[in-house]
Amino acid sequence: MVNFTVTEVKERVLADNDAVAASVREELKEKKVFLINLMASPGAGKTTTLVRTIKALQREYRIGVMEADVDSVVDANTIAQTGAKVIQLHTGGSCHMDADMTKRGLDAMGIEDLDVVFLENVGNLVCPAEFDVGAAKKVMILSVPEGHDKPLKYPLMFTVSDCLLINKIDAAPVFHFDMDQLKENVKPLNPSMPIIPLSSLTGEGFDAWITWLKKEIQTWQK
Amino acid sequence: MVNFTVTEVKERVLADNDAVAASVREELKEKKVFLINLMASPGAGKTTTLVRTIKALQREYRIGVMEADVDSVVDANTIAQTGAKVIQLHTGGSCHMDADMTKRGLDAMGIEDLDVVFLENVGNLVCPAEFDVGAAKKVMILSVPEGHDKPLKYPLMFTVSDCLLINKIDAAPVFHFDMDQLKENVKPLNPSMPIIPLSSLTGEGFDAWITWLKKEIQTWQK
Repeated sequence: MVNFTVTEVKERVLADNDAVAASVREELKEKKVFLINLMASPGAGKTTTLVRTIKALQREYRIGVMEADVDSVVDANTIAQTGAKVIQLHTGGSCHMDADMTKRGLDAMGIEDLDVVFLENVGNLVCPAEFDVGAAKKVMILSVPEGHDKPLKYPLMFTVSDCLLINKIDAAPVFHFDMDQLKENVKPLNPSMPIIPLSSLTGEGFDAWITWLKKEIQTWQK
Repeated sequence: MVNFTVTEVKERVLADNDAVAASVREELKEKKVFLINLMASPGAGKTTTLVRTIKALQREYRIGVMEADVDSVVDANTIAQTGAKVIQLHTGGSCHMDADMTKRGLDAMGIEDLDVVFLENVGNLVCPAEFDVGAAKKVMILSVPEGHDKPLKYPLMFTVSDCLLINKIDAAPVFHFDMDQLKENVKPLNPSMPIIPLSSLTGEGFDAWITWLKKEIQTWQK
């Protein structure tokens, strides 16, 4: 039994994504809804991170999740188990969400009864970085198996993000991931971005991430 | 000392990518050059797989590699160590290669002295699947840490590929990757596609992959 809807939010060619994003953000600010744009490669652990994050927040906040994918309802099914409000968005083949698609997703889900909304963007390190969706904060996940050289190859994603989670640190022993080198690679792109190593599997490192997130939510809702 | 060039191949809006792709493929067929379009997520191990593949082939074949990235020369540097002919292509922000960009890359590299050319596409499971670049074969890598549910979420990539490599099987003990479930997920999309588990780190499984590849090269060059 699936307790979420699936909505098609195909990309429309719009003149000014930034203007739509600004209006989305303004409305969310007014309604005190904190929207996080969560971005990562396929398989970096966005959904697993979300599940654990929701569990850490749901006593204090009413949470909604928009699962954006080219196809399938795999992630919405997983998120629905947490009891959070969920909607599955299908992008009609598009490799990213934009502000207009996000607005339609928010409208379809309904945000009047929510404090915090996560948009799980399409798994992709290129396209989602280019589109402001109107979120309060952009959070990026890089997973240990992907390697510490990714900031060099996908610089825009690391430049536009507000917080970088390094996921799957439990798997670090079997990979050649150099955290110091990662930090060196991120520094010229985004010197002040917090970098939080964690494991969505074991929960290690989650305290730091949840602390950062709660502080940002509180600042937004003031 | 870097022994490769870096070429900008920004996307141009062309009416008919498929027509350009067909003409690229025809020219390659005539010149008996076998072009492989290698596609995967960021960090799935495209470059490491290529290095080991080149070493297995380079006694028999003259090999060229086109490294396509949004930015950096990290991968071209790595490939250059093998002695293969290498060119780094920068896509000007584009999340994929198309046939026209590929043609310009082949022209810039020069293929007269080559038997086999690998195009390492931009790390992305969405966009590259949509563009025929004129390759003889499309090969996709999915890595164990990404998970067995990826065919459900990125169906087109699994549908258009001719061979699927499951990389990082050495890391399988620390991940919940179900190979049988992966095969079940691929079956409706691409029932006859060979699925080859391997480790580019240890070399396990490479015999099957190299055997498949050599057979395809021989068929193409007949």
